[in-house]
Amino acid sequence: MGFKVGLLGLGTVGAGTVQILQTPDQRHPLLTELEIHKVGVRSLSKARDVSVPSSILTTDLASIVNDPEIDIIVEVMGGIEPARELILTAIANGKHIVTANKALIAKHSDEIFSAAEKHGVYVLLEAAVGGGIPVIEPLKQSLCSNRIQSVMGIINGTTNYILTRMVNEGAEFADVLADAQRLGYAEADPTADVDGGDAADKISILAALAFGGRVDRSQVSCEGIREVGRSEIAYAEKLGFVIKLLGIAERSDSAPNTLAVRVHPTLLPKSHPLANVNDVYNAILVEGDPVGQVMFFGRGAGAGPTASAVTADLLNIAALLKVGRDCAKQADGTPLLDPLLACAYRQEFAIAPLETLESKFYARFLTQDLPGVIGKLGTCFGDHHVSLESIVQADKRDGLAEIVVVTHVVKEGDFRSALAEIEQMNVLSSIASVLRVLPT
Amino acid sequence: MGFKVGLLGLGTVGAGTVQILQTPDQRHPLLTELEIHKVGVRSLSKARDVSVPSSILTTDLASIVNDPEIDIIVEVMGGIEPARELILTAIANGKHIVTANKALIAKHSDEIFSAAEKHGVYVLLEAAVGGGIPVIEPLKQSLCSNRIQSVMGIINGTTNYILTRMVNEGAEFADVLADAQRLGYAEADPTADVDGGDAADKISILAALAFGGRVDRSQVSCEGIREVGRSEIAYAEKLGFVIKLLGIAERSDSAPNTLAVRVHPTLLPKSHPLANVNDVYNAILVEGDPVGQVMFFGRGAGAGPTASAVTADLLNIAALLKVGRDCAKQADGTPLLDPLLACAYRQEFAIAPLETLESKFYARFLTQDLPGVIGKLGTCFGDHHVSLESIVQADKRDGLAEIVVVTHVVKEGDFRSALAEIEQMNVLSSIASVLRVLPT
Repeated sequence: MGFKVGLLGLGTVGAGTVQILQTPDQRHPLLTELEIHKVGVRSLSKARDVSVPSSILTTDLASIVNDPEIDIIVEVMGGIEPARELILTAIANGKHIVTANKALIAKHSDEIFSAAEKHGVYVLLEAAVGGGIPVIEPLKQSLCSNRIQSVMGIINGTTNYILTRMVNEGAEFADVLADAQRLGYAEADPTADVDGGDAADKISILAALAFGGRVDRSQVSCEGIREVGRSEIAYAEKLGFVIKLLGIAERSDSAPNTLAVRVHPTLLPKSHPLANVNDVYNAILVEGDPVGQVMFFGRGAGAGPTASAVTADLLNIAALLKVGRDCAKQADGTPLLDPLLACAYRQEFAIAPLETLESKFYARFLTQDLPGVIGKLGTCFGDHHVSLESIVQADKRDGLAEIVVVTHVVKEGDFRSALAEIEQMNVLSSIASVLRVLPT
Repeated sequence: MGFKVGLLGLGTVGAGTVQILQTPDQRHPLLTELEIHKVGVRSLSKARDVSVPSSILTTDLASIVNDPEIDIIVEVMGGIEPARELILTAIANGKHIVTANKALIAKHSDEIFSAAEKHGVYVLLEAAVGGGIPVIEPLKQSLCSNRIQSVMGIINGTTNYILTRMVNEGAEFADVLADAQRLGYAEADPTADVDGGDAADKISILAALAFGGRVDRSQVSCEGIREVGRSEIAYAEKLGFVIKLLGIAERSDSAPNTLAVRVHPTLLPKSHPLANVNDVYNAILVEGDPVGQVMFFGRGAGAGPTASAVTADLLNIAALLKVGRDCAKQADGTPLLDPLLACAYRQEFAIAPLETLESKFYARFLTQDLPGVIGKLGTCFGDHHVSLESIVQADKRDGLAEIVVVTHVVKEGDFRSALAEIEQMNVLSSIASVLRVLPT
């Protein structure tokens, strides 16, 4: 009894998936029960890294999701359409789905998961976040008895590579980005990576799974790393921090059924578990009651790691089909799903506006080099209930004094109103940088 | 339709498990379908941290594993007997097992897993390794399509705590151990922790699951941290290493169906992912094709983390029973098991003898302070095909010269025969320390 797989897309990840299925030796024997039945591609004549019989290649993607023989669809074509439409058709046809498409799931999980629930099929997406790092299934299965307090992570390899090189080489963002593009670590259009959109897709998915509820991706605030300069990297280092682009999702203390979900560059204490995650590596830190902190680390992208996650999802569906195939049904005849792996949302979450959050902040000011400036800044922060951890007059720069402030945990609204008042001060030349700091 | 749980043991982990089951709010809703039916304890009158109705407490453990109403047995009593006997009886009665008992599984997995296969029940043991860190299920489910090359980890919290304090305080092993015992981080009898037996149990279990075959625990060589002195910690630091007690399991390059499995203190390059895992934290690094390196990090012990793993296993069994309960059967009527979570071994592995392995070594020699000694040592290593990465004459100590050697990757047999020849040299006072070094 084998399981027939329809593959949508034969790019890097698709080819990696085929390669695993074609070399089952020393892997789990269940792999031999999976058979690639059809592969949908854009061009039949393109040269490929893997050898697939031409008889199973087709450019007619609809014929794959409508093929009654196929049990499981693997969607690794990317993009919103036609991926969304094809997946919904496949689900309506009772096929299970494995997808690596984070942008699609982040934006349309509601529609896709509802359809999957209605038709009694699985939609697994381990490959959508963290490449080969097991994190989606551990959240669903291994940490399912915890009350999750927070999920945060370095979930974009390109920006982590850029930030790591900026630290190691003391280089500026634009120079490293150009070199990363030349080396193939960054796309020609780097927007989704460096402006945080990719990380926002991923933290939305992680938040929804960790907290078991719907998260509106369009409300997730998102700040990239373009404004992180060499100066910030250097000051962070001096103050005992390292700067990482983090996706963060936390349960709100103040409002029920509310999450704080956002992406921004963050100063991390060097002793923090995420602080030593460098280069293209990703890591996700989950905090739960009673498990405490657990972290998952590995390569967040690439053909091999992503195909590892895709094929694991395939095997998990095959394993579940073996146990319950054609027998476990609900009263209306819909197949019964494993309640940990099924993806129906249990509730809807509100997203807390950024200005209601509490955080530590780092800010760098350029001011006239006059006595009393530190006092003025300190007083202004105090007037707005912003308590400071440190305020340091650093080097002079172009005749201006450079003052670096790190606050304690304060309300973002208070901090912003202090900044607004400081902006009006005669002694101020500019607010050169404002970044968030993770508390120890 | 609920699932009835019989709990064997109400110590720290048992109480933590009850606490999770009694507070299902904001955890996975499937928890509410689990019901603690009976709890086996040694004394009915003992004061406890959790409140359990006295009507379900019993000292008659056999009555629990023979209770026809119970679906799943949680064994958190520890020790080999009567745990083994009770588990086998429960399995024969068709009950699924969740256990945190690493010593029992390391030694008797063969018998227990065979019985489970015969009777069509699950034996889940996430809590046996790494406390609350999801590692067993990710190995079984999320990495199942990989060819695993190695699994290694810091899997004993007590020794990691001791080594971390030795580094931070420059203290000697015996002093830190005594303090750790006072603080409750080490047992009154610390043997299983500091001599590596606990870590050897755990790496045997990880190896068996990662490579999918039987591993004979009695052949796993095991060296603890008693011989790691302040000098070694300091020299390691100077050379760019940190010393950790690692459990390591690797596929042998030279012999088929052979694994190298052992526990020993190891010099790790400071840039290694495991090098920054400190205090009581554990971490397991898995390397597979094509996933590359993935690491799992968290608290390796304690009531909360361990109970998180126990209850996750309970939920996973409940979820599978919901999908396939009373329907998926083999031809002979035995229930069909999820092939990824079932624990039958697929093969038997030989364990490579230590002297056949290749490794980098660190050695510290005390010699007479004469010219030419470094040359003599270097020549002797060369004669035995042991290529050196560095040889440094360090400080003098009690009128003797202290020479520290780090080799390239060499055969352990060659290295040992060089040492045997060096031991006969007149200039040698003593070989103060020999440790293994992880290649970069």
